[in-house]
Amino acid sequence: MDFEHNDRTKELIARVEKFMDDYIYPNEKTFAEQQAAFGADRWQVPAILDELKAKAREQGLWNMFLPDSDLGFGLSNLEYAPLCEIMGRVSFASEVFNCSAPDTGNMEVLERYGADWMKEKYLKPLLEGEIRSVFCMTEPAVASSDATNIQTEIRRDGDEYVINGTKWWSSGALDPRCKLFIVMGKTNPESNRHTQQSQIIVEPDMPGVTIKRNLPVFGFDDAPHGHAEIEFKDVRVPVENVILGEGRGFEIAQGRLGPGRIHHCMRTIGVAERALEKMCERLLTREAFGKKISEHSVWEQRVAEARTNIEMCRLLVLKAADMMDKVGNKIARTEIAMIKVAAPRMALKIIDDAIQAFGACGVTTDSGLARSYASMRTLRLADGPDEVHNRTIARLEYGKTGARMHAREAAE
Amino acid sequence: MDFEHNDRTKELIARVEKFMDDYIYPNEKTFAEQQAAFGADRWQVPAILDELKAKAREQGLWNMFLPDSDLGFGLSNLEYAPLCEIMGRVSFASEVFNCSAPDTGNMEVLERYGADWMKEKYLKPLLEGEIRSVFCMTEPAVASSDATNIQTEIRRDGDEYVINGTKWWSSGALDPRCKLFIVMGKTNPESNRHTQQSQIIVEPDMPGVTIKRNLPVFGFDDAPHGHAEIEFKDVRVPVENVILGEGRGFEIAQGRLGPGRIHHCMRTIGVAERALEKMCERLLTREAFGKKISEHSVWEQRVAEARTNIEMCRLLVLKAADMMDKVGNKIARTEIAMIKVAAPRMALKIIDDAIQAFGACGVTTDSGLARSYASMRTLRLADGPDEVHNRTIARLEYGKTGARMHAREAAE
Amino acid sequence: MDFEHNDRTKELIARVEKFMDDYIYPNEKTFAEQQAAFGADRWQVPAILDELKAKAREQGLWNMFLPDSDLGFGLSNLEYAPLCEIMGRVSFASEVFNCSAPDTGNMEVLERYGADWMKEKYLKPLLEGEIRSVFCMTEPAVASSDATNIQTEIRRDGDEYVINGTKWWSSGALDPRCKLFIVMGKTNPESNRHTQQSQIIVEPDMPGVTIKRNLPVFGFDDAPHGHAEIEFKDVRVPVENVILGEGRGFEIAQGRLGPGRIHHCMRTIGVAERALEKMCERLLTREAFGKKISEHSVWEQRVAEARTNIEMCRLLVLKAADMMDKVGNKIARTEIAMIKVAAPRMALKIIDDAIQAFGACGVTTDSGLARSYASMRTLRLADGPDEVHNRTIARLEYGKTGARMHAREAAE
Amino acid sequence: MDFEHNDRTKELIARVEKFMDDYIYPNEKTFAEQQAAFGADRWQVPAILDELKAKAREQGLWNMFLPDSDLGFGLSNLEYAPLCEIMGRVSFASEVFNCSAPDTGNMEVLERYGADWMKEKYLKPLLEGEIRSVFCMTEPAVASSDATNIQTEIRRDGDEYVINGTKWWSSGALDPRCKLFIVMGKTNPESNRHTQQSQIIVEPDMPGVTIKRNLPVFGFDDAPHGHAEIEFKDVRVPVENVILGEGRGFEIAQGRLGPGRIHHCMRTIGVAERALEKMCERLLTREAFGKKISEHSVWEQRVAEARTNIEMCRLLVLKAADMMDKVGNKIARTEIAMIKVAAPRMALKIIDDAIQAFGACGVTTDSGLARSYASMRTLRLADGPDEVHNRTIARLEYGKTGARMHAREAAE
Repeated sequence: MDFEHNDRTKELIARVEKFMDDYIYPNEKTFAEQQAAFGADRWQVPAILDELKAKAREQGLWNMFLPDSDLGFGLSNLEYAPLCEIMGRVSFASEVFNCSAPDTGNMEVLERYGADWMKEKYLKPLLEGEIRSVFCMTEPAVASSDATNIQTEIRRDGDEYVINGTKWWSSGALDPRCKLFIVMGKTNPESNRHTQQSQIIVEPDMPGVTIKRNLPVFGFDDAPHGHAEIEFKDVRVPVENVILGEGRGFEIAQGRLGPGRIHHCMRTIGVAERALEKMCERLLTREAFGKKISEHSVWEQRVAEARTNIEMCRLLVLKAADMMDKVGNKIARTEIAMIKVAAPRMALKIIDDAIQAFGACGVTTDSGLARSYASMRTLRLADGPDEVHNRTIARLEYGKTGARMHAREAAE
Repeated sequence: MDFEHNDRTKELIARVEKFMDDYIYPNEKTFAEQQAAFGADRWQVPAILDELKAKAREQGLWNMFLPDSDLGFGLSNLEYAPLCEIMGRVSFASEVFNCSAPDTGNMEVLERYGADWMKEKYLKPLLEGEIRSVFCMTEPAVASSDATNIQTEIRRDGDEYVINGTKWWSSGALDPRCKLFIVMGKTNPESNRHTQQSQIIVEPDMPGVTIKRNLPVFGFDDAPHGHAEIEFKDVRVPVENVILGEGRGFEIAQGRLGPGRIHHCMRTIGVAERALEKMCERLLTREAFGKKISEHSVWEQRVAEARTNIEMCRLLVLKAADMMDKVGNKIARTEIAMIKVAAPRMALKIIDDAIQAFGACGVTTDSGLARSYASMRTLRLADGPDEVHNRTIARLEYGKTGARMHAREAAE
Repeated sequence: MDFEHNDRTKELIARVEKFMDDYIYPNEKTFAEQQAAFGADRWQVPAILDELKAKAREQGLWNMFLPDSDLGFGLSNLEYAPLCEIMGRVSFASEVFNCSAPDTGNMEVLERYGADWMKEKYLKPLLEGEIRSVFCMTEPAVASSDATNIQTEIRRDGDEYVINGTKWWSSGALDPRCKLFIVMGKTNPESNRHTQQSQIIVEPDMPGVTIKRNLPVFGFDDAPHGHAEIEFKDVRVPVENVILGEGRGFEIAQGRLGPGRIHHCMRTIGVAERALEKMCERLLTREAFGKKISEHSVWEQRVAEARTNIEMCRLLVLKAADMMDKVGNKIARTEIAMIKVAAPRMALKIIDDAIQAFGACGVTTDSGLARSYASMRTLRLADGPDEVHNRTIARLEYGKTGARMHAREAAE
Repeated sequence: MDFEHNDRTKELIARVEKFMDDYIYPNEKTFAEQQAAFGADRWQVPAILDELKAKAREQGLWNMFLPDSDLGFGLSNLEYAPLCEIMGRVSFASEVFNCSAPDTGNMEVLERYGADWMKEKYLKPLLEGEIRSVFCMTEPAVASSDATNIQTEIRRDGDEYVINGTKWWSSGALDPRCKLFIVMGKTNPESNRHTQQSQIIVEPDMPGVTIKRNLPVFGFDDAPHGHAEIEFKDVRVPVENVILGEGRGFEIAQGRLGPGRIHHCMRTIGVAERALEKMCERLLTREAFGKKISEHSVWEQRVAEARTNIEMCRLLVLKAADMMDKVGNKIARTEIAMIKVAAPRMALKIIDDAIQAFGACGVTTDSGLARSYASMRTLRLADGPDEVHNRTIARLEYGKTGARMHAREAAE
């Protein structure tokens, strides 16, 4: 057991932190201003983003996420975790390093399971950061964290599949650079529960694809990324667009959910750190009742608890990552479930305290805190609500209890 | 002691509830649709609002808020409380009954302290619901819940006052119907702390008045009302525009803050009731793991605690209102401070649980919950943050303790 | 609606408070010393108790609890509530006024349902404060808050009943003055669920009655009262000892549980007030880091929240009492359930904060706080755990929701 | 970074766990019965304890705590942590392995700083488990977590020191085997704040030493260990009894507090694990409303959160231990402070939930939970209350913030 990062990781941490200091933080305002200049026509990409991407690529800080592949850095989950955390400190930073969801998950799927033509047509420009992509899974009418509930139909018709259904929370679909949807649906509804689904590639401009609306989070549109409700009506795609093969959608989904969840948790730690930083700066620079607010002991307690809770959650993220590396995502699923619940709650509490420290400035756009709050709040629901993950954890605990009781009885 | 409303109040409750059932709830969707139809040009008033106002007025449910005056219903705070709560259940309902902030406070100020010409020019159309108004108090650079921190300058220059300063969170300033700002500022900065300020009437189209921007709340613009940052630069107004007299701004503010806070708390109870209703309906109509979500015991606990906490907060609001009626706002300030802290926290917890019950639908605009959350979150900061009110309560408690210890020592 | 007590209640409050000031608080130490002097032989009654009882009776502050009866004061629940709260401030005070559980409940049962000979033999000396009594309901092996689970058998055998079973948490059974057990058990196990039980009078020295042990609460024996585990083995009692009649035990129990719960809640408010008093006195008399602990803002927040939560719980207790008076215990059961859950939680939080304020002195016997904590903690379990009461509240809420949804559908 | 224990640690974990399974758990009941058989004369050692100690020693599981010394195992803090946790699962287990506080701290002090005669006379029998010892630091009248507040006077008089003062919470002083007090007091009150204190050895039977009373925790006497209030009145001891030298008491205390706190935290994890085990077993074996309580979802949430919080706290304990090993107790003080606050709170929540799961059985002695609760509650106060540790953490955080702000300004 050892709580120190290895040298390679330390060196990467230092490089990514320097990049953040040199280029990202100083351009947060630029990003906001460029976006504000778009007025009502918000589904555009601020120019600064491309400039920063070019710089990151130049410095070789690009595609760090991809494990077990020549195309990325070959970092383990444990090595990638601290980098992902740092990138999480600014909402657009992950994209600058070409490490942002859902592209990371989609790239991993294509790299692992994609046909050669898919790699050429989609993976390559994704790895270049030229196009963006969407994963269409969640549906409005059902609890779709359970993949077996999915209603979207993918029916074979000759050399084509015909897709019918509605997806929502399809993040990134409103981005003008989006060229690719990976759609989950049922090709084999009569098959057993784990072989009903397939994943299929759809392009946004195919006939029958309609983006119905953007779904704001609280009141934020999250432009230029955005979360869309999309209707698929008799959308016809060639049979070769199915990834890996008919009926293997669940298998692919299982592979991506673990890393996807843990990446979100890593970024969440970064979001929490940033909120704590902002809170402390505010407390040290404002006065009330004749002294700095930082000296009021109620804030000492909140700051200390924030620090402690961040540390504990970070350790659990790192442990989960280490387990994923060592024993695989399946055995690590308890740890993933635990941190999936714990990290957003921790971040929400800290951001809420930070809002309180900022006063009225905290609830509006100036501080960035309300946006962070909204974003973190969705994580208590995305990929399954807290209650479902807690149920999983409890059932595993009960299982251990049952085994222990059984063994004790057997011994008596 | 008696926990039953008197007959007059019961009858008014029944009438307001019926109006809500007949006209408000059925038109929530209409309101949203009309607003959506405005597109980017959001600072307009949906037509349905005027239709509903006409109906409310027709039914005599109009200006119920004004206590101790022939112009209103002459209700006590205790009698008005349940009506205000019911109106709080829908964001635009208070305005339908011409009982919405900040007009209510401004009308009360004009009725009590306004010159005849002010009553004719501003109070009359406000009571008719023809124009709207703003109270400009909070400033971006200072903790302005303490009125003595206010920096806006109101300097006498001959027959005019010259106003310089910046206000923000001036709610309602973006409404096209807004014709009146009541601005708080310092006419006598050298005077003692309670006679430095004056309140003065400014009209939005006077030279030197610039609305700099809207301040979104968690991404919501709260159109057509909105919260503005306003710059006053060498704004010249006639001397007679000062309300009540130079140096009496603090006195006027004291009079309005008590009722203002308690009205917000009353509405907060209504917001919480509505969120609980939505939560229960969702829980009863969705299934998970083979049974209604309502039957999962974790939700039983949350629903029960929501019900209990609403009941307790409602009782404290009512008691505070009763004390304001009987012993005055000054003596009732502990109770007002207590409920000012307790009510928004209670509501936020319930809305957050409701969001969790709704899943992804809870964080977007469809459920109305995220909007309620944002709105309630501001109440932990508006008119002073929780910490300041708690400090007031604690100091009064310590005072009692000190007196008790003193008496005991004296007796020994 | 009116939040002021009536004149009679105000006068009684003043008299009881004066008695507390004059006789109870000054003798808390005496009580503890007399008890300590008993050494290991703790099941004795400190002499001061009888002295104080004599004084209370002399002043006519005696048997105030009994509603609707010539034998008591004829106070309503709403009128009795503030008196009960004040008595709750000191653990032995209720007994001084002959208003302590479980005697109050037992006296009420005997007064309402007892045969004349029972009134003569048991009720009279109970009203005189000469003997004490026990209510034997809870059983170790079952969830006995549901009376239908009760396993104790009361079998008719000629002119006698034969009782077999084990009860625990029989409070007061170890008191040397205890002369009476009212035992709940099944006479008619085959009958429908509400007519299986009977309540029967057993005397402690009857053959077959064995007090197995005292049950400490967090290490406190609660002497001289105590909570006992009692075995009834072939205990034979005359048939006339059944109260009201065979099969009517559930009916009697229902009548006593409402007032019993609400009395506990009233006393709980008193316990919380006392803890807050102690906490404030400590905070005002100790220093840390160069200033009074009371001036550290973290304590301001805790004190303020304590005050607010006490006020809210008190109002809910009073409202529940008012409803019991006006619409009966059955309809008031939601309010009773709500306060049954809310009051102990509120008190526990305040006592825990007070312990923290007292430091190491808080966890030992000197401050009285640890004892209060232990005592309040049992109330989250006694007469049914929080979860069961919350379930009741939620189900009533769901019922309202269902009705509302139904009405809405019918209207469409 | 690596989250797996090394092989040596794994092997020791397995051996200690097996010992617990074979000897400790099966004898918990024996321990309780032997203690109960003592009746009122509770300050005796149950015979089973010596039997178990002999067995542990036989197996070489003895004195595992002592780092950097030939006398112990030479384990690092990180290696000792999981063993300490396992021993923490049963209140008397640490003593079985001769690893219990305060003996561990006292042995470490003697080993590091003791004169040869001290090692011979005290350290040797302590290492043999023949005698026990006390550390007398805390005083009733002052906040003695700040060592500079200490009032006990150690005045030089010829070849002797004369000790006057009162200590309390002197744990272990009532144990009949206790032969040694290490007393902290002021030899040089005029010196600078860190050289005023000395530590001196006093024997319990020296003239002038009076054990005034046992201090129960909640209502538990913690026999045969116990926590004493001790008066030192003109106690004369030879000058050579000062450890390390006059004025070096603070230095010695600093050295012991870090490991002392972290050991408590390690045991706390064990206490929490045990409570969770008990809770799960109860939930799986009781029914309510027609199904196992474990299947009620409110318990799933509690169990899951218990599991998650244990994991997070354990990781933070391990990280703190690793830092102590690598960078020393001083630099690791933030981590120690964090876990000192976090671990007891975590355990208290879980135990409280477990009590709720056990119903009335939870608050009495049968379940062991109330005892655990009382014991854990003291840890929020012992060695400084939460608020003081949080203050330390916050100030370090503010320091980082200040440095960051300064650097940013310098860069601009």
